Amino acid sequence: MQKEKAMPRGADYVKRNSKRRYYTYRKASKKPASLPPMDTEKVKISFLGGMNEIGKNMTLFEYKSDMFVLDCGLAFPSAELLGVDIVIPDFSHIIAFQERLRGIIITHGHEDHIGGLAYLLKQVNVPVYATKLTIGLIKGKLEEHGLLGSVKLVEIKPRDNITLGQFNIELIHVNHSIPDAVGLAIKCPAGVIIHTGDFKVDTTPVDGDMIDLPRFAEYGKRGVLALMSDSTNSERPGTTMSEKSVGESFELLFRKAKGKRIIVATFASNIHRVQQIMDVADTRNRKVAVVGRSLENLVKVGAELGYLNVPEGILIPIDRIRDYPDDKLLIITTGSQGEPMSALTKIAMGEHRKVNVTPNDYVIISATPIPGNEKMVSNVVNALMKRGVEVIYENMYDVHASGHACQQDLKLMIGIVKPKYFIPVHGEQKHLINHATLAESMGISRDNIFIGDIGNCIELSENGIKKLDDVPSGETYVDGYGVGDVGNVVLGDRRILSRDGIIIIVTTIDCSSGYIIAGPDVISRGFVFVKENEELINSIKEIAYEVISDRYDRRYRDWNSVRSKVKDEVARYVLERTKRKPMILPIFMEV
Amino acid sequence: MQKEKAMPRGADYVKRNSKRRYYTYRKASKKPASLPPMDTEKVKISFLGGMNEIGKNMTLFEYKSDMFVLDCGLAFPSAELLGVDIVIPDFSHIIAFQERLRGIIITHGHEDHIGGLAYLLKQVNVPVYATKLTIGLIKGKLEEHGLLGSVKLVEIKPRDNITLGQFNIELIHVNHSIPDAVGLAIKCPAGVIIHTGDFKVDTTPVDGDMIDLPRFAEYGKRGVLALMSDSTNSERPGTTMSEKSVGESFELLFRKAKGKRIIVATFASNIHRVQQIMDVADTRNRKVAVVGRSLENLVKVGAELGYLNVPEGILIPIDRIRDYPDDKLLIITTGSQGEPMSALTKIAMGEHRKVNVTPNDYVIISATPIPGNEKMVSNVVNALMKRGVEVIYENMYDVHASGHACQQDLKLMIGIVKPKYFIPVHGEQKHLINHATLAESMGISRDNIFIGDIGNCIELSENGIKKLDDVPSGETYVDGYGVGDVGNVVLGDRRILSRDGIIIIVTTIDCSSGYIIAGPDVISRGFVFVKENEELINSIKEIAYEVISDRYDRRYRDWNSVRSKVKDEVARYVLERTKRKPMILPIFMEV
Repeated sequence: MQKEKAMPRGADYVKRNSKRRYYTYRKASKKPASLPPMDTEKVKISFLGGMNEIGKNMTLFEYKSDMFVLDCGLAFPSAELLGVDIVIPDFSHIIAFQERLRGIIITHGHEDHIGGLAYLLKQVNVPVYATKLTIGLIKGKLEEHGLLGSVKLVEIKPRDNITLGQFNIELIHVNHSIPDAVGLAIKCPAGVIIHTGDFKVDTTPVDGDMIDLPRFAEYGKRGVLALMSDSTNSERPGTTMSEKSVGESFELLFRKAKGKRIIVATFASNIHRVQQIMDVADTRNRKVAVVGRSLENLVKVGAELGYLNVPEGILIPIDRIRDYPDDKLLIITTGSQGEPMSALTKIAMGEHRKVNVTPNDYVIISATPIPGNEKMVSNVVNALMKRGVEVIYENMYDVHASGHACQQDLKLMIGIVKPKYFIPVHGEQKHLINHATLAESMGISRDNIFIGDIGNCIELSENGIKKLDDVPSGETYVDGYGVGDVGNVVLGDRRILSRDGIIIIVTTIDCSSGYIIAGPDVISRGFVFVKENEELINSIKEIAYEVISDRYDRRYRDWNSVRSKVKDEVARYVLERTKRKPMILPIFMEV
Repeated sequence: MQKEKAMPRGADYVKRNSKRRYYTYRKASKKPASLPPMDTEKVKISFLGGMNEIGKNMTLFEYKSDMFVLDCGLAFPSAELLGVDIVIPDFSHIIAFQERLRGIIITHGHEDHIGGLAYLLKQVNVPVYATKLTIGLIKGKLEEHGLLGSVKLVEIKPRDNITLGQFNIELIHVNHSIPDAVGLAIKCPAGVIIHTGDFKVDTTPVDGDMIDLPRFAEYGKRGVLALMSDSTNSERPGTTMSEKSVGESFELLFRKAKGKRIIVATFASNIHRVQQIMDVADTRNRKVAVVGRSLENLVKVGAELGYLNVPEGILIPIDRIRDYPDDKLLIITTGSQGEPMSALTKIAMGEHRKVNVTPNDYVIISATPIPGNEKMVSNVVNALMKRGVEVIYENMYDVHASGHACQQDLKLMIGIVKPKYFIPVHGEQKHLINHATLAESMGISRDNIFIGDIGNCIELSENGIKKLDDVPSGETYVDGYGVGDVGNVVLGDRRILSRDGIIIIVTTIDCSSGYIIAGPDVISRGFVFVKENEELINSIKEIAYEVISDRYDRRYRDWNSVRSKVKDEVARYVLERTKRKPMILPIFMEV
């Protein structure tokens, strides 16, 4: 008991390296902790997202009857998920055990960490813990879903501790491409787990402090059971460029732009980037206008919460850009990934209502394409260039710094945390494997590294990592208001429809005689130009007519059989004639 | 006349630099060339493909009543061209003037240069000129389309001349990622035009000679009216790596693979790459098996025509790989771009009938992803790694050399050809602009550089470049057997269907009374799980019923009006309830 009192704040961890391995600290308890049996000193981790994928990060931590969720993100649908707006994790496991859920902790305000939260909170109402800016961004999400006010949001600071049942969690400041990001020291009787969250090591951050390496090192010194670390950039050698270098490139490029109007495209959430653009614009006496809904929102929230320091008088509404000469103007816009509906794409295609580009524009795309977006970004660059615009893109200058640690920094983190077990997180298989290879090169044995997959559940203790049965996990598709009502059958249909369209064959039948009284009519969509293919359509009609009249005449009234016979015959004919496989849909109406 | 006789072979060019600017040489004529009036000394170039795009290269050259086509390629459809198999140029301009068409010249055997040829030859029958390997590959294409035998194929060698009407064209050997590639010196009374074709400068080619720079230089010395040069790699600084360096990487990596089985994925057309793989495999006593239809075909054609030197006894059929231990085997496969139906993708997904991978496999992806394919390649790498396979990909080693000249080599070409006019070809806008900037940096004035677009037609002479009216041009979509029967309407429908599916509302109506006698029935595909949304479907039925019965009761028999009213009402309801926009298709059957 005395020992507990003597402990410094934040030091409530399991003394793993001492002989008394089972000594534990419990904040809530007034009585000294009793020695639990050996097998209870285990912490369970379930990976509900972010393993073998970039996106929808979500991890469940369990100790006995206490659970908490770390992050609740979304993923953007891959190309084959036709019509799906966003993808969120499968929450069924959490819902099944919700009476044990003590809370949700969010590391930072990016979509892949907060985008699924509102959907989860509709089903389980527990407190959400995060730093100030993250809470600000979450509020926006909850408002959209009509949840604001009904959810408890708890604002916390780095080095603060959160007690969730038998878990005690300290937040640790990290650098990332959004302010106020944190990593975690997750403490429970089984030991300390360090989770980096998304991080980079920026020795000269634009605003705020460098990543709190001393705190990570302190935990490392005392003994860490496991390190879970961000694998996003594990393929890239060296260290990650400082955000400040981007500012230096802006200074150079803004000078080069001379008499031209400058347009800079960047990620809407990158407050530091926006800060640097505004600062350099200010020194060059340019007014700044902002286009793109998410960016306008960021500037508002960022300024309100004190994360963005807008130089006085610099901001002008986009409607007033005509009042200023080109060389006194700078426009910040969304669309750095070439997203089809973004402001920059509309500007490039000449479809933006308020911004028209001319050869007197100088566009800087301050981002690198996310894998899969390369083509869209190229399209925007090409379209701008066709309008005579000078475009700075890709690696022409250092106009973008990644938010994730590269190999040297990842090794630094492993080196100071010195974990017993290593679990690479946030990445595709190649990222996880590369990260594991780095850890091995630093002396962590292969047996102490766990490469997980979505749905995996592991039990961690001083004695080892044990893989338990998988938990329910997966992807839930959100399409419009529908959550989970689009699955493989619907997507399969969409895929067929998207490739070759649909042929509908409608026939009205007298059910007493079995004779056709109207049709068969053939209607197609997405198949061929009907006008130029009348003969083809007529042949389909004839085939259908023969099959139906033949079958019905013989009083062979098995609808399903007639339907599938029509389908097969028409499909065969169409494939032979056109080498295409449209959906064939025979419809019978009985009168 | 005497002068002409004294001329060396291949020197039949226009003496542009002399005072007698209108003196011309005509092979067909026995009489001395008469002085034509000034305005006839012009050559016309129409860009039918390959400008502002990578793919479907096709250029038309015209002098008076003589025309020839250079290359006739295909492009692969962009993601929004749902269900389209390939894209070929619009041939209507050529067909309209086909009586003037003297022939088609093909620079090399890649799909973006030969893939549209069979479709063109179905409409115009003219001789096709190309080098030996290119002819071999064209034969395969023509056979598929049942055209072999009906088309005259003329095999020519570099430094040979082709006379097509008043054009005389010399082929010039270049290096590229397929053997037997050529550039052209196009000579007509208006002057000499140099077209590089796709090229790189490889000082240590795997097989055959280095690019015939002396010949390009010779034309440069005599005077070149215009240079049309490959812009594909104009964004990349430096020089292009030699294909031979790839062989050196193979030597290193094959050693590293030790006791493992090696699988190398590469482009099916890269004979030199395959040669190097076989050669290094041979030195390490590995047998070679080939998977993937296009690669099997290449090995066959390449060996037959003498372009691939297969070490004796090295090739084994893929069915016999089980007879050899892993360390005595190497498999060459297609699928280096992660194409969904390719052999490597099937192997990675565990779906290949003949090749199963284990942790004792060592996979080398000997290619870089073509822009737009990054994600697919990543998916394959991830899937292989999940099976424990070691994968060498992207820039980990020099396992791929580009087939296109980088900036230094592009400048070299401009420097030795010294053209009056410069026309960057083969590239998107950014490639063309970057190439133009290189030319400007070498002293070619901006006014003498033409950045073209598909459909542009220019008239070139000593006096300048004149842009004429555009010619018909564009994209023709091939979907199955259909050529051009899928257009914007069909694609628009496919897009709607792909996103939210279709709702079909069928109603049978007694046309004498106007009453509904069956239905409305509602059938949906690709919209929602019907079983879970019965209530929604029933509501749609009710809405349709009300609209129809209301309208028909009032003897308001305007079908189109009823149809559009049903459509609007249902669409509004569906949007409100689901935030989705499926295609709504009301069908009426009158009895």
